[in-house]
Amino acid sequence: MNGARRLVDTLVSHGVDMCFANPGTSEMHFLAALDDPRMRSVLCLFEGVATGAADGWYRMRDTPAATLLHLGPGLSNGLANIHNARRASSGMVNIVGQHSLDHLAHDPPLASDIEGLARPLSHWLQRVDSPGEIGREATAAIAAAGGHPGKIATLILPGDVSWREVDEAGPPPPLPPRERKVPDATRVEEVAQILRSGEPTLVILAGKAVRGRALELAGKLGAATGARLATQFFTARAERGAGRTPLERIPYSVAPAMEFLKPFRHLVTIETREPVAFFSYPDLPSLTKAPGTQVHALVEPDEDSELGLKMLLDAIGARDIDPLVQPREETQMPTGALTPVSIAHALAHAIPEGCIVVDESLTTGRETMGYTMGARPHDMINNMGGSIGYATPVATGAALACPGRRVFCMVGDGSAMYTIQSLWTQAREGLDVTTIIFANNSYAILKAEFANMKAGEPGEQASAMIDIDRPRIDWLAMAKSMGVPAKGVENVEDFTRTLVASCREPGPQLIEVRL
Amino acid sequence: MNGARRLVDTLVSHGVDMCFANPGTSEMHFLAALDDPRMRSVLCLFEGVATGAADGWYRMRDTPAATLLHLGPGLSNGLANIHNARRASSGMVNIVGQHSLDHLAHDPPLASDIEGLARPLSHWLQRVDSPGEIGREATAAIAAAGGHPGKIATLILPGDVSWREVDEAGPPPPLPPRERKVPDATRVEEVAQILRSGEPTLVILAGKAVRGRALELAGKLGAATGARLATQFFTARAERGAGRTPLERIPYSVAPAMEFLKPFRHLVTIETREPVAFFSYPDLPSLTKAPGTQVHALVEPDEDSELGLKMLLDAIGARDIDPLVQPREETQMPTGALTPVSIAHALAHAIPEGCIVVDESLTTGRETMGYTMGARPHDMINNMGGSIGYATPVATGAALACPGRRVFCMVGDGSAMYTIQSLWTQAREGLDVTTIIFANNSYAILKAEFANMKAGEPGEQASAMIDIDRPRIDWLAMAKSMGVPAKGVENVEDFTRTLVASCREPGPQLIEVRL
Repeated sequence: MNGARRLVDTLVSHGVDMCFANPGTSEMHFLAALDDPRMRSVLCLFEGVATGAADGWYRMRDTPAATLLHLGPGLSNGLANIHNARRASSGMVNIVGQHSLDHLAHDPPLASDIEGLARPLSHWLQRVDSPGEIGREATAAIAAAGGHPGKIATLILPGDVSWREVDEAGPPPPLPPRERKVPDATRVEEVAQILRSGEPTLVILAGKAVRGRALELAGKLGAATGARLATQFFTARAERGAGRTPLERIPYSVAPAMEFLKPFRHLVTIETREPVAFFSYPDLPSLTKAPGTQVHALVEPDEDSELGLKMLLDAIGARDIDPLVQPREETQMPTGALTPVSIAHALAHAIPEGCIVVDESLTTGRETMGYTMGARPHDMINNMGGSIGYATPVATGAALACPGRRVFCMVGDGSAMYTIQSLWTQAREGLDVTTIIFANNSYAILKAEFANMKAGEPGEQASAMIDIDRPRIDWLAMAKSMGVPAKGVENVEDFTRTLVASCREPGPQLIEVRL
Repeated sequence: MNGARRLVDTLVSHGVDMCFANPGTSEMHFLAALDDPRMRSVLCLFEGVATGAADGWYRMRDTPAATLLHLGPGLSNGLANIHNARRASSGMVNIVGQHSLDHLAHDPPLASDIEGLARPLSHWLQRVDSPGEIGREATAAIAAAGGHPGKIATLILPGDVSWREVDEAGPPPPLPPRERKVPDATRVEEVAQILRSGEPTLVILAGKAVRGRALELAGKLGAATGARLATQFFTARAERGAGRTPLERIPYSVAPAMEFLKPFRHLVTIETREPVAFFSYPDLPSLTKAPGTQVHALVEPDEDSELGLKMLLDAIGARDIDPLVQPREETQMPTGALTPVSIAHALAHAIPEGCIVVDESLTTGRETMGYTMGARPHDMINNMGGSIGYATPVATGAALACPGRRVFCMVGDGSAMYTIQSLWTQAREGLDVTTIIFANNSYAILKAEFANMKAGEPGEQASAMIDIDRPRIDWLAMAKSMGVPAKGVENVEDFTRTLVASCREPGPQLIEVRL
């Protein structure tokens, strides 16, 4: 067994059985090893698709996928979506090829400081210098990536280490048990006292607390205490819709966020921190809570939120109360022009049960998610790192993670262009993704931000830098080029009908929403 | 004058008057400052296009362009082509936005270690922490980028530094004079002795030695001494074709390179080093020269090759000899099937005078460049760093640098997909680029490399990772989606005619060569 086969064997032995790959010459032995029938490999035509897909996979499965990246530049192309995954606490195991160590000494053209490039965004980083180390190091990488919260592990594999034989194979070392830390009882008691006091309190949930049993426990807490429940504006993956505990959403923009947070004397955080503005603006604060508001960390990001919420419910004696539950709200087929509100109504009408909504709609979708609160139960995924070009790859990975569930990928035209190669992988794998392009032919968000920044009135060159209407992107041709059926819509009835129809046909589709 | 305007003023005052931009919220003030009429801004829909275009600009102008990148992820997206530019000794000034320093302390979602991400590939790196430093630091960045050889300079601009006022503006400090180092006279004498000895010698030229006066001097050297003249397989930019001194090309693959180098007792290097294999393979060496061959560095990469060649010609008393010159060879319109040889004939027939050929054709074009030696005079640009996705952005930057000259961008289908967003910028700016897609629907180079690596016979999954034929990319639809007229060709007559016709119409075109 050579080093590459040892690596694939270790990955699949520990449950990492999906590899999003963009290989090069130095990874040929790893490629050969991918023929292990326990491993599934998915080809991506750009590395940002591979790392984003691994993020999407983790968000739906809570278990890491591997990526295969070609040397320093291949890793570099994947870094923006590694940043987004890191901010979402998604785990992934990046396998980065490297030249053979002897060859590296001659500084060939593709050599670069891979460790240096990987370090800023990797929690765990190691180059394997002999085939005998692979079992141990790969197990350590998987343990790091798959813990709670998920982490970015990067394993650098030199060519000669991949093709040389492993002396003693045997089974790889066992994975350490995956445990979540127990929240501090003193903190729980402190929060219980605050809730008993009846002072206005907002509980902010994130990470794994906005789904399943933890979300239900939060619903009990809300029902028992009257504390309001919210998420940050962005959440890695929230379960929402009919039958789930409803959560409010702290607004994106600084002034509305401050207005929203103003009434609260206390903010209780679960797997998150106090709200921070996304960007800094002249004369606006970075922290959006009101002066005098106190922040209490009930559950730290590496702790067990389900356990923390149980402890808190026990402390206030409310374990058996019924949770707050969102009722189903039927939304009729909307009519008329395409506006943020009518688009939200269309979504509320069309979202099928179990839908995974990946949202990178920026200006179009930003303030309208409230309208889908009573839609059929679905998962909502947001961009946690703010680097655009995350949605189409994440939708790809989420669809692979959850066969049989339709993915709605809502994305602005500017964002979609970053990693548009995702469409090809969706067509190749026959994935049930409906990509919804909001085509406003501009970086509309930047137009708003230009004003927010008090940068004056944009002149001709500056305006040209935030308009993408010369030429207009022909989204139907773009989809066709990569084998994805597409339709353009110009009113909300057509949009809604096309959205509903896309759920009936297997495979990917693209809808250009002409704004 | 705020910090952003101070920065733009410093750039244009020192001749950096082109900015390839992909801005975000934190760069709004810089965007406003780009309205300075002395600066030209070109929007790119992905950062890899911006950095690649800056590389193409430098290769044709020997003077750096600026890029505008949005925070750490924006820089990350541009790194692969920064790697390629670095290996080509192209200079560029990257302006990377950063959060305001107060805001950064709160670790907002888009924060990352920008310095850490920039360091491995930047020769010069500095964050500007107050508006008053901008004139000095930007001048230092331009001096670093614009010297010989060109360098990667990265200036990190926090939001508040860009919007705060500069206390004392005045003119920016002067640029230090740009000088090339004088080659060492002892080394020149040593090489002169070798050439006088008549022992078989290969002179390997690179960098700025393969164009203009330096190339002519090399032609005199060849004529006077019988030493053979060659380039590495890849060259940043070579002037070639009729009327130029012809240079041989050291083959790409290890065995043919060894065969080529075998006869030589001496290798004399000018702005380069001895040949190194691109990749390492089991049982093949990294250095391809024959045992016993001696290597002599006549001109180091930071030295003046024109001066070094003059010194050498003086030492051997051959300054007045006529240089070797490539005669014009007319190539008739080829007929029949599309093969590497017929494609080379088509190029030889079609290349117009002054054409800039950007080559990333990999398998299809690799061994056929010899056929274009006697074509009309043109420039040939290769990928020096080996990270694919360089050609379409470099062609974009080269076309902007040289209005009135047609660019032929030869690119494999796999490579083209990495930075295909370039087509949009070409359409927007009406650039005279003919993109030639060699559509073999596979990573053909990897099929060959699989065998070279002795990785066995690829199994089903491994094979699927190097084929991109499910679905086939529809290149005509792809071009249409971004506003570029396109045509598919299936025989070499059609290819040649379409190529010739593309030179008569202004603006971009795409030719899908169906292999």
